[in-house]
Amino acid sequence: MRPPPSARPFLQWLFLGGLVGVVSGIASALFLYLLDRATRLREHHTLLVYTLPLAGLVLGLIYDRWGKPIRGGNNLVIDSVHEGDTRIPLRMAPMVLVGTVLTHLFGGSVGREGTAVQMGSSLADAVAHRFRVDAATRRELLSAGIAGGFGSVFGTPIAGTVFGLEVVVIGRMGYEALLPSLVAAVVGDLVTRGLGIAHTAYPAPAPLPLTVPLLGKWLVFAVAVALVATTFVELVHWMKKGWERYVPTLPLRMTAGGLLLVGLWWLVGTDMYLGLGVPTILRAFTDPELPSAAFALKLLFTVLTLSAGFLGGEVTPLFFIGAALGNVLARLLGLPLDMGAAVGLAAMFAAAANTPLALSIMAVELLGSAVLPHVAIVSTLAYLLTGHRGIYPSQRIARLKH
Amino acid sequence: MRPPPSARPFLQWLFLGGLVGVVSGIASALFLYLLDRATRLREHHTLLVYTLPLAGLVLGLIYDRWGKPIRGGNNLVIDSVHEGDTRIPLRMAPMVLVGTVLTHLFGGSVGREGTAVQMGSSLADAVAHRFRVDAATRRELLSAGIAGGFGSVFGTPIAGTVFGLEVVVIGRMGYEALLPSLVAAVVGDLVTRGLGIAHTAYPAPAPLPLTVPLLGKWLVFAVAVALVATTFVELVHWMKKGWERYVPTLPLRMTAGGLLLVGLWWLVGTDMYLGLGVPTILRAFTDPELPSAAFALKLLFTVLTLSAGFLGGEVTPLFFIGAALGNVLARLLGLPLDMGAAVGLAAMFAAAANTPLALSIMAVELLGSAVLPHVAIVSTLAYLLTGHRGIYPSQRIARLKH
Repeated sequence: MRPPPSARPFLQWLFLGGLVGVVSGIASALFLYLLDRATRLREHHTLLVYTLPLAGLVLGLIYDRWGKPIRGGNNLVIDSVHEGDTRIPLRMAPMVLVGTVLTHLFGGSVGREGTAVQMGSSLADAVAHRFRVDAATRRELLSAGIAGGFGSVFGTPIAGTVFGLEVVVIGRMGYEALLPSLVAAVVGDLVTRGLGIAHTAYPAPAPLPLTVPLLGKWLVFAVAVALVATTFVELVHWMKKGWERYVPTLPLRMTAGGLLLVGLWWLVGTDMYLGLGVPTILRAFTDPELPSAAFALKLLFTVLTLSAGFLGGEVTPLFFIGAALGNVLARLLGLPLDMGAAVGLAAMFAAAANTPLALSIMAVELLGSAVLPHVAIVSTLAYLLTGHRGIYPSQRIARLKH
Repeated sequence: MRPPPSARPFLQWLFLGGLVGVVSGIASALFLYLLDRATRLREHHTLLVYTLPLAGLVLGLIYDRWGKPIRGGNNLVIDSVHEGDTRIPLRMAPMVLVGTVLTHLFGGSVGREGTAVQMGSSLADAVAHRFRVDAATRRELLSAGIAGGFGSVFGTPIAGTVFGLEVVVIGRMGYEALLPSLVAAVVGDLVTRGLGIAHTAYPAPAPLPLTVPLLGKWLVFAVAVALVATTFVELVHWMKKGWERYVPTLPLRMTAGGLLLVGLWWLVGTDMYLGLGVPTILRAFTDPELPSAAFALKLLFTVLTLSAGFLGGEVTPLFFIGAALGNVLARLLGLPLDMGAAVGLAAMFAAAANTPLALSIMAVELLGSAVLPHVAIVSTLAYLLTGHRGIYPSQRIARLKH
């Protein structure tokens, strides 16, 4: 039988989801403000990059002493959504915030979504404990924390909502947490913007009609995206294992990683692969002279930073890798440069995180409606071609992709 | 363990999904061409409407004699996706096509998605039988048929893809059929456009920033949409039961329904509630003088046509009802008229069909990216507020909404 809906859970979700939105929106605003300051400081004082090994040592000591329960990062969050017993420590929020900002200050190549998602969900878990909600409600609030963090840090509330639902399981999307996730993401985004934070404005490509030859090009494009996403995922896992085996002490590992990064930076002779790399992402939309190897170098910088133990996320580096790869593929395949960069940007993260729908919607929120069919097609194909690996090994597999 | 993907199923889905796309695209093109001719003919020869009772008698006799196995319509399709044993007869395609076109020729108020979905899935079932695929593959091909029909008839391939996955179950979306659905919808849309069919161009509302007062307005808006969607769903069910009880013979029922429709048409003294009503949908975006009762009258015409036994779909009438209601609500709440109509249009069908995500994407494909956050918020709230009813009673409930 179909029971009538009741107003009580509806209002409860508006309240609890809104609360999660407010706290994750404030956290994202603080994070983005500090990140902006750190990035500017580093850009004006490039010598700071030479202290990255020292920063790695200090951060490694701090993480080693107080950070053990939070080292799981996004995987800990995904595990907690599935298994009610894993508590997310509240200190995850400040630790991952400070760790990511410092990593950026000294030029490490990491992203933001990991930090935002971990802050959002650890704050959501605190809300869950404060109001003594039951286990099912808590799991849905954790999804809301993911959605609130993701939606507010990128200014993409609807993508945040879908990301919170889509990221926890591969091959299925449950609607249990739909309302709290939507409320948290929308309120979180409002709060972050209300606190004066402006997000990167990406160019909106012009509409491009689908044709059969274009579909053929997108298939080739998707294979390339899937190959690079797979390389990224496997390289992070493989290098992490290698690091842990040969340099078991975290502070030493991060120092060594910092040294390697400084060496790599010195070798390539440019700052463009440090930090988020937003200027290069924007350049990929318009510059036919972008170095063809840019995507591979950014991949190397990011894999090195993350595998050595630095904290942060993967979205913006993967946007960089995808947009730069898309730029090259657009030139090879005869596609408009901006459309190639746009599709690469979204599809690369969709394939690496197994979230094709969230990234299709994110592309619309960042890049306008003209990109939708192209991004959805390439994201889905690349998502299917990467198999069951991903940047979040904790994702459960509901159904095999094939 | 995570098995590596294999190229074989990938290529198989490209082929089978593409084939379903080609046949459903051709069917949609033929349908839209005939529908356009029928609508023009009726608009130029209004006297045709007086023959609606006679058309009801003839259609009723035909359905009664040959149409029993296909009377389930979209519910039969949804049942077949869940239970492998229900075969969808191939004759469903021509019967529902002819029935819908004739209903429009004589002025009945029905939509197109039912027809397109039923043609797409019965053709997909024929493909499944021709290639002797196994039961699981057949179910996924049926989803592809839904996606191919929906995507090609509205020119919205990505919404068609998501609709095919979202419509079969309430509260969860499986990705099993993602690839064949995407391929069928994209190819189907290409084929329909390639055959020279042009789709209605809707105006794209200007961006409207989210604010707290605006969220309050959208909440009121969503309650109104949910009330009207619930009224529509319940009235169709209730009147269908009433008709079947008091006029058990289908040809007589459709004759009587036709007579009532002619009387209602004569009473309101305008043709605007007959057929699809696309001109009035477009008017709702710009005309502050649109009659406030337009949404209620279209609801009455549509409920009467569908409950008496005429075939067709619900999308375009629900777009009309939603856009007209949105027009009124925009004037009452102080919202831009076009945004009100846009949000009403998408959210009304999202709530009635339990497909908030497909309609959020459809809104982007039809109305541009500025509507996305507003449509997604109102569609989700209205979807949750309508409870577990819907225009497709065969939808399984994976999770209660609350």
